Amino acid sequence: MTTTLRTNATLDLGPAAALSCRECGNRTPLAAEFACAECFGPLEVAYEFGTIRREDIEAGPRSIWRYRGLLPVPADVDDHANTQPGLTRLIRADRLGAELGLKNLWVKDDTGNPTHSFKDRVVAVALAAARQLGFTVLACPSTGNLANAVAAAAARAGWRSVVLIPSSLERAKVLTTAVYDGALIAVDGNYDDVNRLATELAAEHEDWAFVNVNVRPYYAEGSKTLAFEVAEQLGWRLPEQIVVPIASGAQLTKVDKGFQELGTLGLVEPTPYRVFGAQATGCSPVSTAFRSGGDVVHPVRPDTIARSLAIGAPADGPYVLDAVRRTGGAIDDVSDDEVVAGIRLLARTEGVFTETAGGVTVATTKKLVEAGKLDPEAETVLLITGDGLKTLDAVADHVGPKATVPPSSKAVHEALGY
Amino acid sequence: MTTTLRTNATLDLGPAAALSCRECGNRTPLAAEFACAECFGPLEVAYEFGTIRREDIEAGPRSIWRYRGLLPVPADVDDHANTQPGLTRLIRADRLGAELGLKNLWVKDDTGNPTHSFKDRVVAVALAAARQLGFTVLACPSTGNLANAVAAAAARAGWRSVVLIPSSLERAKVLTTAVYDGALIAVDGNYDDVNRLATELAAEHEDWAFVNVNVRPYYAEGSKTLAFEVAEQLGWRLPEQIVVPIASGAQLTKVDKGFQELGTLGLVEPTPYRVFGAQATGCSPVSTAFRSGGDVVHPVRPDTIARSLAIGAPADGPYVLDAVRRTGGAIDDVSDDEVVAGIRLLARTEGVFTETAGGVTVATTKKLVEAGKLDPEAETVLLITGDGLKTLDAVADHVGPKATVPPSSKAVHEALGY
Ligand SMILES: Cc1ncc(COP(=O)(O)O)c(C=O)c1O
Ligand SMILES: Cc1ncc(COP(=O)(O)O)c(C=O)c1O
Ligand SMILES: [Zn+2]
Ligand SMILES: [Zn+2]
Repeated sequence: MTTTLRTNATLDLGPAAALSCRECGNRTPLAAEFACAECFGPLEVAYEFGTIRREDIEAGPRSIWRYRGLLPVPADVDDHANTQPGLTRLIRADRLGAELGLKNLWVKDDTGNPTHSFKDRVVAVALAAARQLGFTVLACPSTGNLANAVAAAAARAGWRSVVLIPSSLERAKVLTTAVYDGALIAVDGNYDDVNRLATELAAEHEDWAFVNVNVRPYYAEGSKTLAFEVAEQLGWRLPEQIVVPIASGAQLTKVDKGFQELGTLGLVEPTPYRVFGAQATGCSPVSTAFRSGGDVVHPVRPDTIARSLAIGAPADGPYVLDAVRRTGGAIDDVSDDEVVAGIRLLARTEGVFTETAGGVTVATTKKLVEAGKLDPEAETVLLITGDGLKTLDAVADHVGPKATVPPSSKAVHEALGY
Repeated sequence: MTTTLRTNATLDLGPAAALSCRECGNRTPLAAEFACAECFGPLEVAYEFGTIRREDIEAGPRSIWRYRGLLPVPADVDDHANTQPGLTRLIRADRLGAELGLKNLWVKDDTGNPTHSFKDRVVAVALAAARQLGFTVLACPSTGNLANAVAAAAARAGWRSVVLIPSSLERAKVLTTAVYDGALIAVDGNYDDVNRLATELAAEHEDWAFVNVNVRPYYAEGSKTLAFEVAEQLGWRLPEQIVVPIASGAQLTKVDKGFQELGTLGLVEPTPYRVFGAQATGCSPVSTAFRSGGDVVHPVRPDTIARSLAIGAPADGPYVLDAVRRTGGAIDDVSDDEVVAGIRLLARTEGVFTETAGGVTVATTKKLVEAGKLDPEAETVLLITGDGLKTLDAVADHVGPKATVPPSSKAVHEALGY
């Protein structure tokens, strides 16, 4: 489990102070580790923050690096070629809110990232940490978006990459990874098979940083930037409700962690917020566990068009349950038809075209409002984390031109019913 | 040609003062006109700028609206639901520069816009002006990117849209337009046929704002924001060289206009800059005219994979020739194979995946350096205006996984040649 490539003397991971076990609390020095030596529990980054002021953040780069004082990266992180993700739009969503019955709704549109998903955030942090830890190759198993982000970030930095994907992946996600010219390997198997393979390879290659495996504690911190940006863009305030899609669950737990850190550091008032989770019914192990009231997340075999969320054995599942229950939120899941309807609803009302994962978020939000679990009056943020262009097949049978006509205005009028 | 929907008394188009003819200089009041009543020359927006300070711009919204004082839009433009485009990344491109032989290279990555092309800029300005002019429907003929941008902007604003596209358009651009649920009409014909049809329809419907036809003078101004952002992001400086793709040529002429305005207003030192144009050989009327030394741009029938640039009769062709010659630049064109190589080179070196139009820009840059027309020492900016996800077919036969293997580390090692 340990690959200590560099001694701690030369390690500069900014405010990161140690790794600590999420199960037993055991602390170990910063290193390329991801599982506790005592109990095999997952490690996460612990910090010693200095004073962090809003003004310094606001004067920082127009990317996630404005929050570098809150991330496990060195202060000069932006001096190395990187994709400079983040600071994506947070838009008022009044038209969507009217349809969903939410009076005060925002959409965080993360399709504006370099490879059009939130994965650019986590990969940028992983790359910066991996450089410090002495790795030279960037790698991952991926359901698609991570593949795009890793291949692009490695290309930009001039690193080699090794990306493993299920061979069934959407064509758009395959091509969009391959174009960056790293080593892309399609694996016959589902994501969970590919993930196991990556763990095996990580143990064999001490210079390969599998962003979501052996540098996962650093990588996962990148999702906090979604929380930081939402709060800053609201004018340094926490929303009352936030809806987050769940695959491994890392994003949801880190959004929660990000909100907590902002409160603790005095960057926002520590007002109460509730975290809600969204899954596709065809891969809903966390939603099922939530509904059952239990703590155990039973693995499932995914079968849904929301392939980017198709992780049947979600590593952070139990921590998702904790965060959602602690904050008073809820988790639900939606059918593939509802996912498509969610994609179309967001596009039609707000002009934002999201992939299936975003359809899951919108459709689950609808369901949670109808069930009375989301408060219609409370300020609510939806995390739209990926782009519709990558999952065109999801809508291909549902939308298209109204008509194909010869080039005459009469024909156009007829097509429009004039 | 005239559709005066609103009297000038209620018109608020910010600093815009009049329309003026680019041929004869004749001035007319601001209105929904696009051709000179005297000579039929194209109209453009003339301004009376107040004092504009860098600090006010820097304190403005994180979108093109920070430059609203330089655009034909009211001061409250951002109070209406809009897609908030712009402020996309300007990235150092040292690895690309090393391959191209340019020592000081930047890439303006406009794929980060809401619908992933620079068209979101021009459409946002057109929509804001159209609202002031009293229109209620947003419309366009399009080679694809404009279709996406118009459909999305209308959806977000709650306007009806009518979008006309050539029926041969890339599937991605069709679906990505249709999903916003406006009236999308496929027309049997090429872009120039669709454009003529739009002109006919614009005359028949006084409430339809065809962004690039009857509100074209306002629309085109949106491209100035590329120049403004480049200058601001360089630290309020003009680059020495800029390479711009050409379809109608509007973007190139407005980037030039933007640089001039910044100099005139004292927002930057008015240092010399040279503007270069890029076309695909299969649709290179402006490049051909430039090479011939003449002033006349002869229409062509497009045949290139760079369909977003496939305008055979470019409205701004002569003004492109003027701007390029006046600044000491040049125009060249590249084969479809070179376009693909350009896409792949940019992806491999900088992690930016552009569509065919960006491939044209990169490949033409290479050619201009090799021909000694671009100075290798001078600070150079490439405008990457559209996204690779929309033209996947261009690379589909060229890139893909290195191998498809069973889930075993041995198989991965073999595939990687270990
Ligand atoms: C678009 C998108 N949204 C959300 C997620 C969920 O991420 P996590 O694994 O952190 O739960 C993923 C994961 O791949 C994703 O691709
Ligand atoms: C991606 C892209 N780049 C550049 C252009 C050129 O625009 P213009 O017509 O202003 O020359 C277009 C036009 O459609 C485009 O789609
Ligand atoms: Zn432990
Ligand atoms: Zn005139």
